[in-house]
Amino acid sequence: MADARFFSRKGPFSVAEIAALTETTPVNAPDETRVFQDVSPLQNAGGDILSFFDNRKYLDAFVSSKAGACFVRPEFVERAPEGMVLFVTKDPYRAYAKAATAFYPFETGTGIISDHAVIDPSAKLGKGVQVDAGAVIGANCEIGDGTIIASNAVIGDGVVIGAGCKVGANASISHSLIGNLCLIYPGARIGQDGFGFAMGPQGHAKVPQLGRVVIGNDVEVGSNSTIDRGAGPDTVIGNGCRIDNLVQIGHNVELGMGCVVVSQVGISGSTKIGNFVVLAGQAGITGHLEIGDGAKVAAQSGVMKNVGPGETVGGSPAVPVMEYHKQTVALSRLIRKKK
Amino acid sequence: MADARFFSRKGPFSVAEIAALTETTPVNAPDETRVFQDVSPLQNAGGDILSFFDNRKYLDAFVSSKAGACFVRPEFVERAPEGMVLFVTKDPYRAYAKAATAFYPFETGTGIISDHAVIDPSAKLGKGVQVDAGAVIGANCEIGDGTIIASNAVIGDGVVIGAGCKVGANASISHSLIGNLCLIYPGARIGQDGFGFAMGPQGHAKVPQLGRVVIGNDVEVGSNSTIDRGAGPDTVIGNGCRIDNLVQIGHNVELGMGCVVVSQVGISGSTKIGNFVVLAGQAGITGHLEIGDGAKVAAQSGVMKNVGPGETVGGSPAVPVMEYHKQTVALSRLIRKKK
Amino acid sequence: MADARFFSRKGPFSVAEIAALTETTPVNAPDETRVFQDVSPLQNAGGDILSFFDNRKYLDAFVSSKAGACFVRPEFVERAPEGMVLFVTKDPYRAYAKAATAFYPFETGTGIISDHAVIDPSAKLGKGVQVDAGAVIGANCEIGDGTIIASNAVIGDGVVIGAGCKVGANASISHSLIGNLCLIYPGARIGQDGFGFAMGPQGHAKVPQLGRVVIGNDVEVGSNSTIDRGAGPDTVIGNGCRIDNLVQIGHNVELGMGCVVVSQVGISGSTKIGNFVVLAGQAGITGHLEIGDGAKVAAQSGVMKNVGPGETVGGSPAVPVMEYHKQTVALSRLIRKKK
Repeated sequence: MADARFFSRKGPFSVAEIAALTETTPVNAPDETRVFQDVSPLQNAGGDILSFFDNRKYLDAFVSSKAGACFVRPEFVERAPEGMVLFVTKDPYRAYAKAATAFYPFETGTGIISDHAVIDPSAKLGKGVQVDAGAVIGANCEIGDGTIIASNAVIGDGVVIGAGCKVGANASISHSLIGNLCLIYPGARIGQDGFGFAMGPQGHAKVPQLGRVVIGNDVEVGSNSTIDRGAGPDTVIGNGCRIDNLVQIGHNVELGMGCVVVSQVGISGSTKIGNFVVLAGQAGITGHLEIGDGAKVAAQSGVMKNVGPGETVGGSPAVPVMEYHKQTVALSRLIRKKK
Repeated sequence: MADARFFSRKGPFSVAEIAALTETTPVNAPDETRVFQDVSPLQNAGGDILSFFDNRKYLDAFVSSKAGACFVRPEFVERAPEGMVLFVTKDPYRAYAKAATAFYPFETGTGIISDHAVIDPSAKLGKGVQVDAGAVIGANCEIGDGTIIASNAVIGDGVVIGAGCKVGANASISHSLIGNLCLIYPGARIGQDGFGFAMGPQGHAKVPQLGRVVIGNDVEVGSNSTIDRGAGPDTVIGNGCRIDNLVQIGHNVELGMGCVVVSQVGISGSTKIGNFVVLAGQAGITGHLEIGDGAKVAAQSGVMKNVGPGETVGGSPAVPVMEYHKQTVALSRLIRKKK
Repeated sequence: MADARFFSRKGPFSVAEIAALTETTPVNAPDETRVFQDVSPLQNAGGDILSFFDNRKYLDAFVSSKAGACFVRPEFVERAPEGMVLFVTKDPYRAYAKAATAFYPFETGTGIISDHAVIDPSAKLGKGVQVDAGAVIGANCEIGDGTIIASNAVIGDGVVIGAGCKVGANASISHSLIGNLCLIYPGARIGQDGFGFAMGPQGHAKVPQLGRVVIGNDVEVGSNSTIDRGAGPDTVIGNGCRIDNLVQIGHNVELGMGCVVVSQVGISGSTKIGNFVVLAGQAGITGHLEIGDGAKVAAQSGVMKNVGPGETVGGSPAVPVMEYHKQTVALSRLIRKKK
C-alpha cells in the first residue's frame, strides 16, 4: 500500500513468522504457512493484508473489515469478521509496530560517505556510517556504527553520537553527547547557547554557557525542535524520550526516562522532569520546577509550580485536572445565569 | 521605494495599463497615458506613486495623502484628495496586490544549476529549473518547469514538485508530492516521520510512518513550519492554503482548499479541516477532530471537539465565540464584585 | 569544569585581575596575587574556583560552598563561609558574566574561508571574517570584520551584516541589514516574505513584501526563530534585544531597545513594541498594537489591546496582572463553593 516511490517493502511473512516476531497468539489460523504481503489500516485492507484494531472507536471498521489478518485484544476475538486470521495480544498497536517494521525496516547506514560531505580528518567514524551530500562533521567528532548523517546536517567539533542513530537533513548539533539509536529529525537544533544573560538597563550581558547536552539511548528529537546546552550543569534527556516537533527545551533542563513531549511544548531553564512524564501539545513549563514521575500535563497548560508524581494538571495557570474541569464547567454556568 | 539592494522594479505603468491589469475603473483620470513609477503605502506616497486605501482605520491617511493614484472602494471616491487618480474597485487590496506584482514580479527559475548543487543523475528537472549552491536533490525526484530550489535545501528521493514553485533556503522535503505554484519557505520541514509509537513502560515502540504528504497547487508553507507525513493514509494540504511560520501539522491531517493557518498553530494527528477555514495564531487543535468549511478559530484557542461549518470558536477549551466573550466578561465582573 | 571536548579555558586570573575586570571590590582577600583557575556554580566549586551568589534561594548553597571565591552582594558578606574570597558588587550575576567571559571568551572569526564555502565574487568580506564549509554568501553582500558565517548558513543577495557577528549553522538571512555584535543562532530565518495576501473565495492573492529586516547592534536571535521582512515599511529590531528560540516576529513589527522576547512568543504584523519590554514564554501579541516602554507580558498571555508603558499584563485575553491574579483566585473559589 505504501507508495513505492518512497518505501520499499520486505516480506511476505507467514502466520508463524508474524506470531513469533510480534509475540502474539494466532487464532482462527488453520494454515500457519499462509503469508501476508503488507500492513494497512482496517478500512482499506484486503485479503493478504495485516491490520490492527486498537482503539474501540474503530469497532465498526473492525467488524466490517476485509483485512486478511488483524492484531486484536482477547475481548474482541468474538467480534471478528468470518475468516479473518487473528493475532491476539494485550497490546495490538505495539504488535502492529513490530510487524510494520518487519515489512518496512528502519533505515540504517549504507557506509557510503558522499564526496560532497565535509568531514574533518580528526573525526572518528564507525563501521557503516553514512554521510550524505553537504553534511559537515567537525574536528574530533565520534560517530558510532551504522549512524546516518543526512544532507546538509552540521555536527560541531567534539560532538559524540552513538551507533544506529540518524541525524536528519539540515539539523545541527554542537556541544553534545548523544547515545545509541537516537533519531534527530530535520532541522532540530541541539547544543547551542542557552538564553542566559545578566539583564540591566545598561544592556543584557551574555553569560557563557559552559554545559553540554547529554542525550541517552533511543531518544527522538522532532523537526525544528531546539534543545539548548546547559549553562554550567548539562541539559539532560533520558533514555527512551520522545520529543515532537517545534519543542523548546531550555538550558539545564533534565528529562527522565521515557518522557513524551508533544509538539510546541516549551520547558524553561533548570526544570527537572521525572520518568515517563507526558507533556501535551503547547504546554509551557516555568523554569526551576520539579515535575514528578508519571505526571501528565494537559495541552496548552501553563505550569507554574511543582507537580507531584502521578499528578495530572491542566489550565493556565495549571491546577489539578479535576479542578480545571470544574473551573471550565463553573465558567460556562456563570454565563448561562447571566442570560 | 523598495530598497534597490534587494528589489528590482519594473514599470512604469500607465493609467490604462494599470486599469486593465487590475480590472479596476479609473476615475478622475483625464490622461490615460499618465504613468506611475512605483507602489507605496498612503503615508509616504508621492505624485508618481500608486497606493491603496482598504482599511477604514486609515481614512485620515487617505484624505491627506499625496499619492498620485490610489485603489479605492466606490463609497470613498468623494473623500479623495483633489487631483488623485482613483482606480475604483470593491477589493482595493487585491487590486494593489496585482499592481505591486507588476512592479515587483515574483521570482521565477533562471534555469541556472549551480556547480555546487548535488543532483542525483536520475532526477528529472523541467525547463528553467534553478538549483542554487548547496541544494541536494535525491534519486528519482521530479521538479517542474521554472521551479527554484534555493541554497542548501534538501529534496529527498522520489519527491515530486510541480512547476513554478520555490523551495526556500535550508528547507527539507521528503516523501511528498507537491503541486504547482507552491512556495515552501526557508527551513520548512515536510514529509518526515510523524510522531507515532506504541507507548508503554517497556519503551515507546516506533511505528513506521507509511504515508506521504500531498500538497495541492498554490500553497504556501511558512518558515520553519513542520508537516509530518501520514502514518498510513496521507497528510493532505488542499489548493490555495496559506500556512504561516512555525506551524505544526501532524500525520494524517487533511486541510481543504484555501485554509489560512496563522503562525504557531498546532494541528494534531488525523484531524480533518474543511475548506476556507481560518486558524488564528497559536491555536491548538486536538487530534481526530473535524472542523467544518468556513469555520474560524480564534488565536490561542484550544479546540477539543468538532467545530461545525461556519462556526467561530474561541478560548481554551474552545467554545462558540459569543460564549467565550461572555465568559471573559463574567470573569472580569466576578473580580469587581469581590473588591 | 567545562568539558574540554567543547570548551578551551583561558586564565588563571588573579584577585587583582578579576576585581579590575569585573569592577568589584575584593574583600577577605589578603593576597591579591592569588589566582583562580575556573568558574563554576556554588554547589560544585572547589578552592581554586570562582563562583557567584545572586539568587537568595541559593543561600544554603552559598553558606556551605567550598568555592575559593565568590561574587556577592554587600548584604551577604557576613554570611560567607570562612576563608572565601569575596568580590562585592550590587550585580553579582553581571560580574560573573564578565569573569566567565574572561575564562571562556566568545568566539571570533579566524579569518579562515573554507574551500567548501560558496561566496559570490561581488561580496565584500571584512578582515578576519570566517566562513565555514557549506555556507553560501550571495551577490553584493557585505560582512563586517571578524564575523563568523557558520556551516551551511545562507546569506542572500545584498544582505549587510556588521562586525563581530556570528550567524549559526543552517541559518538563512535575506533582505536584511544587521548591525554589529549580533548573534544569529542556528536555523533562524530572517528576511523572508511576510504572511501577506488579499484573502478571498477566488483565492488568496499574494502581496509582494517590499520592506526589509533592520536589526541594530548587540542583538540575539534564537534558534529556529523567524523574523519576516516588512510589507512596505521595515521590520525593525532595536539595539540590545534578546530573542529566544522559536519566536515568530511578523512583518512591520518594531521592537525598541533591550527587549527580551522569551521562547515561542508570537508577535503579529505591524505591532510596535517600546524599549526594554519583556515578553514571557508563549505569549501572543495581536497585530497593529502598541506596547509601551518597560511593559511586561506574562507567559502564555494573549495581548489583544495596547499596553501602556510600565504596565504588566497577563491572561488570555490579557488584562492588568493584578486583575489576572484575582480572576485566577475567583475562579478557584467558584468551584470550591460548588462542592
